[in-house]
Amino acid sequence: MKPFMDADFLLSTETAKRLYHDYAESMPIIDYHCHVSPKEIWEDRKFNDLFEVWLEGDHYKWRLMRSNGVEEKYVTGDASHREKFQKFAEALPRAIGNPMYHWCHLELRAYFGYEGVLNGDTAQEVWDLCNAKLREPDMGARGIIAKSNVAFVGTTDDPIDSLEWHAKIAADPTIKTVVGPSFRPDKGLNIEKAGWCEYIAALGKAAGMEIKTLEDMKKALLARMEHFDKNGCRASDHGLDYVPYRPASPEALEAIFQKGMKGETVTVEEFESFKTDLLLFCARQYARMGWAMQIHYNCRRNPNSAMFAKLGPDTGFDCMNNVNCAGALYDVLDNLYQTNELPKTILYSLNPGEDELLDTMLGAFQGPEVPGKIQHGSGWWFNDTKSGMIHQMTSLSHLGILGNFVGMLTDSRSFLSYTRHAYFRRILCDLIGKWVENGEYPDDMETLGGLVQDICYNNARRYFKLEG
Amino acid sequence: MKPFMDADFLLSTETAKRLYHDYAESMPIIDYHCHVSPKEIWEDRKFNDLFEVWLEGDHYKWRLMRSNGVEEKYVTGDASHREKFQKFAEALPRAIGNPMYHWCHLELRAYFGYEGVLNGDTAQEVWDLCNAKLREPDMGARGIIAKSNVAFVGTTDDPIDSLEWHAKIAADPTIKTVVGPSFRPDKGLNIEKAGWCEYIAALGKAAGMEIKTLEDMKKALLARMEHFDKNGCRASDHGLDYVPYRPASPEALEAIFQKGMKGETVTVEEFESFKTDLLLFCARQYARMGWAMQIHYNCRRNPNSAMFAKLGPDTGFDCMNNVNCAGALYDVLDNLYQTNELPKTILYSLNPGEDELLDTMLGAFQGPEVPGKIQHGSGWWFNDTKSGMIHQMTSLSHLGILGNFVGMLTDSRSFLSYTRHAYFRRILCDLIGKWVENGEYPDDMETLGGLVQDICYNNARRYFKLEG
Amino acid sequence: MKPFMDADFLLSTETAKRLYHDYAESMPIIDYHCHVSPKEIWEDRKFNDLFEVWLEGDHYKWRLMRSNGVEEKYVTGDASHREKFQKFAEALPRAIGNPMYHWCHLELRAYFGYEGVLNGDTAQEVWDLCNAKLREPDMGARGIIAKSNVAFVGTTDDPIDSLEWHAKIAADPTIKTVVGPSFRPDKGLNIEKAGWCEYIAALGKAAGMEIKTLEDMKKALLARMEHFDKNGCRASDHGLDYVPYRPASPEALEAIFQKGMKGETVTVEEFESFKTDLLLFCARQYARMGWAMQIHYNCRRNPNSAMFAKLGPDTGFDCMNNVNCAGALYDVLDNLYQTNELPKTILYSLNPGEDELLDTMLGAFQGPEVPGKIQHGSGWWFNDTKSGMIHQMTSLSHLGILGNFVGMLTDSRSFLSYTRHAYFRRILCDLIGKWVENGEYPDDMETLGGLVQDICYNNARRYFKLEG
Repeated sequence: MKPFMDADFLLSTETAKRLYHDYAESMPIIDYHCHVSPKEIWEDRKFNDLFEVWLEGDHYKWRLMRSNGVEEKYVTGDASHREKFQKFAEALPRAIGNPMYHWCHLELRAYFGYEGVLNGDTAQEVWDLCNAKLREPDMGARGIIAKSNVAFVGTTDDPIDSLEWHAKIAADPTIKTVVGPSFRPDKGLNIEKAGWCEYIAALGKAAGMEIKTLEDMKKALLARMEHFDKNGCRASDHGLDYVPYRPASPEALEAIFQKGMKGETVTVEEFESFKTDLLLFCARQYARMGWAMQIHYNCRRNPNSAMFAKLGPDTGFDCMNNVNCAGALYDVLDNLYQTNELPKTILYSLNPGEDELLDTMLGAFQGPEVPGKIQHGSGWWFNDTKSGMIHQMTSLSHLGILGNFVGMLTDSRSFLSYTRHAYFRRILCDLIGKWVENGEYPDDMETLGGLVQDICYNNARRYFKLEG
Repeated sequence: MKPFMDADFLLSTETAKRLYHDYAESMPIIDYHCHVSPKEIWEDRKFNDLFEVWLEGDHYKWRLMRSNGVEEKYVTGDASHREKFQKFAEALPRAIGNPMYHWCHLELRAYFGYEGVLNGDTAQEVWDLCNAKLREPDMGARGIIAKSNVAFVGTTDDPIDSLEWHAKIAADPTIKTVVGPSFRPDKGLNIEKAGWCEYIAALGKAAGMEIKTLEDMKKALLARMEHFDKNGCRASDHGLDYVPYRPASPEALEAIFQKGMKGETVTVEEFESFKTDLLLFCARQYARMGWAMQIHYNCRRNPNSAMFAKLGPDTGFDCMNNVNCAGALYDVLDNLYQTNELPKTILYSLNPGEDELLDTMLGAFQGPEVPGKIQHGSGWWFNDTKSGMIHQMTSLSHLGILGNFVGMLTDSRSFLSYTRHAYFRRILCDLIGKWVENGEYPDDMETLGGLVQDICYNNARRYFKLEG
Repeated sequence: MKPFMDADFLLSTETAKRLYHDYAESMPIIDYHCHVSPKEIWEDRKFNDLFEVWLEGDHYKWRLMRSNGVEEKYVTGDASHREKFQKFAEALPRAIGNPMYHWCHLELRAYFGYEGVLNGDTAQEVWDLCNAKLREPDMGARGIIAKSNVAFVGTTDDPIDSLEWHAKIAADPTIKTVVGPSFRPDKGLNIEKAGWCEYIAALGKAAGMEIKTLEDMKKALLARMEHFDKNGCRASDHGLDYVPYRPASPEALEAIFQKGMKGETVTVEEFESFKTDLLLFCARQYARMGWAMQIHYNCRRNPNSAMFAKLGPDTGFDCMNNVNCAGALYDVLDNLYQTNELPKTILYSLNPGEDELLDTMLGAFQGPEVPGKIQHGSGWWFNDTKSGMIHQMTSLSHLGILGNFVGMLTDSRSFLSYTRHAYFRRILCDLIGKWVENGEYPDDMETLGGLVQDICYNNARRYFKLEG
C-alpha cells in the first residue's frame, strides 16, 4: 500500500517517479488561463485566515458543502469563518474520490506543511496552523506565486479593463512572474442579455469613442485589443453556452445591432448571427496579433434561477450541458481557415463526451506556425479530475499528438491552486510511466523526459510566445 | 490468478477484502426500486423448476438467448422448460464479460450451493440440483427474501393499484421485511398512448370519483397518493422516454386534456405540455409528502414493432436512447426549486454518456433536508454492469459526494437478484480499496468502513425514512 | 518493465500470453472491410521505397504530420520521398500513445525485421533497410498478403465497377487468398451532391440500360448486385453522414428522383427521403442474397473546405461527428424486420459515445440465421486504438455476446496494415486474460481459446459464408 499522498502520490511505477521527480516537478508553471485578481497580486493581498484563502470565493467548495446538505448560512451566509470552515472540514471526508480532497491536502502540504488529514476532528488544528502560517510575510499573493515557481499568469479580463494593475506589475522588477491579461469579450457578444446597451457604452468610453454602429463596436474592440496587446496579452477567451454559426448579411447584422441598442429583444437567430459575426471578427484580429483563441463551451450557466437571483453568477450552480454544436464549431474553424486567418486555437468542451470529437477536429485545421496550433484544452472545470485528465490525455494521445500539448491551467480564482499543476503533472507522468512499463513506448528517459517537460512547460512557453 | 468467483470475487486488494467482508457483506439490503410482485410475496410463491425462477419472466435472459441466435420457440415459445434452459446454458459461456454470467453464478452459489460452472455440458446437473433445492420449504418468495437479509423492498405500482397485498404483508408480523409501494403514474401521463381514456376512467374509479377535467384528474392522483402514503409509500417513479418541459396555460392544458378524453390525437407539443404539467404537479405533492421522486429516462421502448405486436412490452427489446433533454431536466428542477417544492430526487439516464452531466446537475439543486437530496441513481438496467457501475461511481465521486450515495437497487423482476447487491458492494469496495492502496485516501478503516456501510445501507435508510 | 514491443507486446498476464500465442496468433486473417486495390493485387504491385508503401496514400500519416506542424509541402507537396519520410520520422516520437506509433513498429518488425525505434535519428537507417527489403521479390502486394496469412480480403467497390480484377484474381490458382468485392452504392444515394446525374448515367451504362425513373435505377442497382454476387460479394457498405429515416410516397420519391435528374437542388427533406428509400430497397436485396449490410455513420467529411478544394476527399481532414440519428437507425432496422427482410447488419458509429447505444440496439433485432446476426463493428477509424478497441469490446461484452463478435477489419488502404489484426488480437487476449486472472471467468483454456479463435476467425468465416 502506498502511503496517503506522500512524495510519490499518484506515481505508481518507477518510470513515473523518475519522470516526475527528475523532469516534471521542477519545471516553472505557466498558468495561461485563470481568474486571479491582478489587483490582489499588485497589492500583495494578505489573508487573515484560512477561510479567506479557501472559502471566501471558491465556488467549488461551496458546491461540495451544499452537496453534503450544509445550509446556505454556512456556505455564503452569515455564519462565522470558523463555523463555515468546520462545515467544510466535515464534508470533505465524505467526498472520497473528489479532486477537492486531493487539492486541499496538496495545498495543506505545499503551503502549510500539514501532513495530516483534514476532517471535522482535525479542523481546529488545521485552522490554527494555517492561520498562523498565513501571518508569515511570504504568504501574501506575491509570496505564494513566487514560491510556486510560476513563470506566467494569464488573467481573464474584460475589454473595458484599464489593465492598470497589469501595467504596475510589469513595471515592478521585484515581481519575477509575468502577469498577462487575456481578452474576454463575452459581454459584448451577449446582445441578448440584460445590460448589453450599458456595456456597449462603457466599451466605447474605454476605447475613447462613441459606438453607434456595429462597425464602431468593432473599431472599439480593435482599439482595446491593441491596448491589451501592448500590455502583454497573448490569448483571448470566449465563454459560450454553445458555439453558433449563422452567417448574415452586413445589413442584417447592423439591424440586429441597432435592435439591441434600442433595448429590444433579439431572437435566437438574431443573437446567433450577431455572435457568429463578432466571433469571426475577433478571431481574425487574434490571428493577426498572434494571440491564441480559447473557446470554452457546453456550460449551463445559472440553472437554478432562485439561487441566481439571490447570489448572482459564479456561485457554484453552473453545470455541464450537452448541446450539439459540433457542426457550428467546424464551420467557424473552416470559415477562418479559408482566408488563412485561423488563429492558434484552444478548444474546451465542458462535456467530456466530446473529448474524442474535439481531438479529431484539431487534426483538420492544423498549420505550420507552431506544432499543435489547434489544441484540445486540458480537462476543464468539472473535468479537472483524475479520470477527466486521464480521459482527455488518452484521447488526445490516441487521436493527435500528446507531445505537442500545451498542458495544464488552473482556471482558478485562488492563489493556492498552483498545486493543481503538480496534480496534473503526476497524472501525466503516471500515464506515460504505465505505457513505458507496459512496453508501449521505449524506455528512453531522454526522450520521455523531454516530452514531459514540453507538456509541462516548453510547449506553452513557445505557444504563448513567452521566450526571452 | 484469483480463483473463479470465490469469496473474494472482484476484490483485488487487501483493503477491498476487509471493506467487503468486515463492513459491507453483512449489511441488510434496501432494494428501494424493483419490480417483484407483492402478491407473490404474500402468497409465498413456490417455484417448480429453475425455468420458473430464471427464465419465465426475465427479459434480460431472453435478450441474451436471442443474441446467441436462439429461435424464439426456445425463448418465449412452446419449447419445454428443460429445452429452454439448455439453450440458455449453451449461450451463457459465449457471453464472457456479461454481468449475466456473474449474476447467474452468484445466484447458483448463494441460493443453490453450486460452485461449478454453468454451460451446455453441466446444464443437466445444474437443473437437477436447483430443482431439488427449489422444493425446500424456505425457497419460496418469502424464504428467499428472508435469507437475503432484505430490510426493505420498494415495489413499483400503478396509482390504481389497491395495494391489498402490501397491506396484507404489513399486517403479517412473520414477514420481517418492509414491503412498500412506489407510485408510478406513467399511464396517466401518457395521453398520447392507446388506452389513456380507459385508464383515466379506471383512475377515477380507484379514487372514488368521476374524472371530467384535468383538475379532477389531479384530485384523483392526489387521493391515490394519500392511499399510497398510508400504505408505506416512500418514493415515486416516472419512466419517461425523455424529460419534457413545455409550460402551457391552464386553459390550454384543460383543452389538451379534453382532446385526450375525446380520443383525439394530441400533438407532440400538446403531450409534452400535458406531461410537464402533471410531472410538476406530482413532484410538488411528493415534496409535501416527503417522498423521493425517481426519474428514469432515455429509453427507447419497443423499437421492434413486429416483436412488440407479438409479445407486448417488457420482453427484452427495449434499448438505450440518446435524446438530448438536459435543458428540460434543468428547467423541471429549477421550476420546483423556485417555489421550494423540489422533492428528494433520483435521476437515472439509460445512456451512460450522461453520467457526468447528471453528476454536475445534482450539485445545483441540493438542499439541507438530507445530505445528497438530489441523487444520481445507481447504474440502471444496461448500466448495471461492472464498467457501468464503476463509471457511475467514479463520476459521482469526482463531481459530487460519493459518501452520500443511496446506492444499489435491483430494478429486477426476480427474487433471486439480491445477489446483485453483493455484486455492487464488491465493486464499490474494490473501487475504494484501489484508491486507498494507491495513497489517494487515508488507510483509516473506521472512516472507510463507515462510508461503505453508509452507501450500502445507512444512506438509503435515512433517505427513504426507514428508521425505527 | 516489459521490453518495448516484444513478442509479448500488450500481453500483461500469463493467460493473455497463452491465449495469444497458442490460439490467436496463427489464425488466418479475414479482412472483411478494407480499401486496398484489387488491381494492385492482380498486378502484384511493387514498391520502390518506404514512402510508396507508407506515405504515398495513407492519410492517417498525413494527419499526424500536420498535427506536428509539418508544412503541406512535406505532406502532399513536392518535397522528395526521403524528405517527407524524415518529417514523418521526426513527428512519430511526439505521438506517444498514438496507435500510429504501434502500427509503424509492428510493421517494421513483421515485414522488415527492424527491431529498433523509428525517429529522426534512425530515419536513414530505417529508410535504407526497408527500401532494400522492398526490392525482395516477395514484398509485392501478393507476397505481403500471402505472408500475412490472409484468408479473405473484402475490398470496397462502386456498383459500376466491372470487377475485372476480382475476376482475374479468382481465376488465378496461385493466389490463395479469396478477394471479394463489397457493394458500396453511396454515389447513387447522394442525390444532393455534385455529379449525381452523371453517376446515374454511368450506373445505367454499367447495367446495360438507360435509367429514366427511380424504378429503373433500382433495376440497375439490382443488376449490379447480381454481378457483384457472381463475383464473390458477401457484404455491402454504406457510408452515411447520418442515418436518415423519412418515408415518402412512391410518387414523391419519383418526383425527387426527377428533380435530381434535372440537376435541380433537392431539399434536406427530399434527399433524406430518397436515401431512406434506397437504403431500404438495397437492404431488402442484401437480405435476399445473404449479404451483410455495413452501415458506417457519424463522420464529418471534408470540414476544411480550403484543403478539400486543394486536395479532394480522403486526404486526412475528415473528422468525427456527433449527430443524433439513433431514432432513424431504430426505424430502419424495424422497417426491415417487420417484413422479415433485415439482412445481417454491422453497425459502426465513428463516435465512440454511441458504443453502448449500439450494443443495446443489436439485441432488439437479432435473428436465428446466425449467432450475432446484428453486429457492432470493431472500433472504426478514429476508434481503432487501444482505448477505442477496449471500449468497444467491453461494451459489447457487457451488453451483448462478445463470443459472437466477427472481430477486426483494417479499413485500410495499405498492404502492410495486416499487423493491425495482431494489434487487435493482443488487445482482445489481454482483455480476456485480465478477466480470467481476476476470477471473472473460469480458467478453462479450451473454452477461452475457442472464444478467441472464434472472434479472430471462425465467426467471420461463418458470417461471411467463407466456409469450404
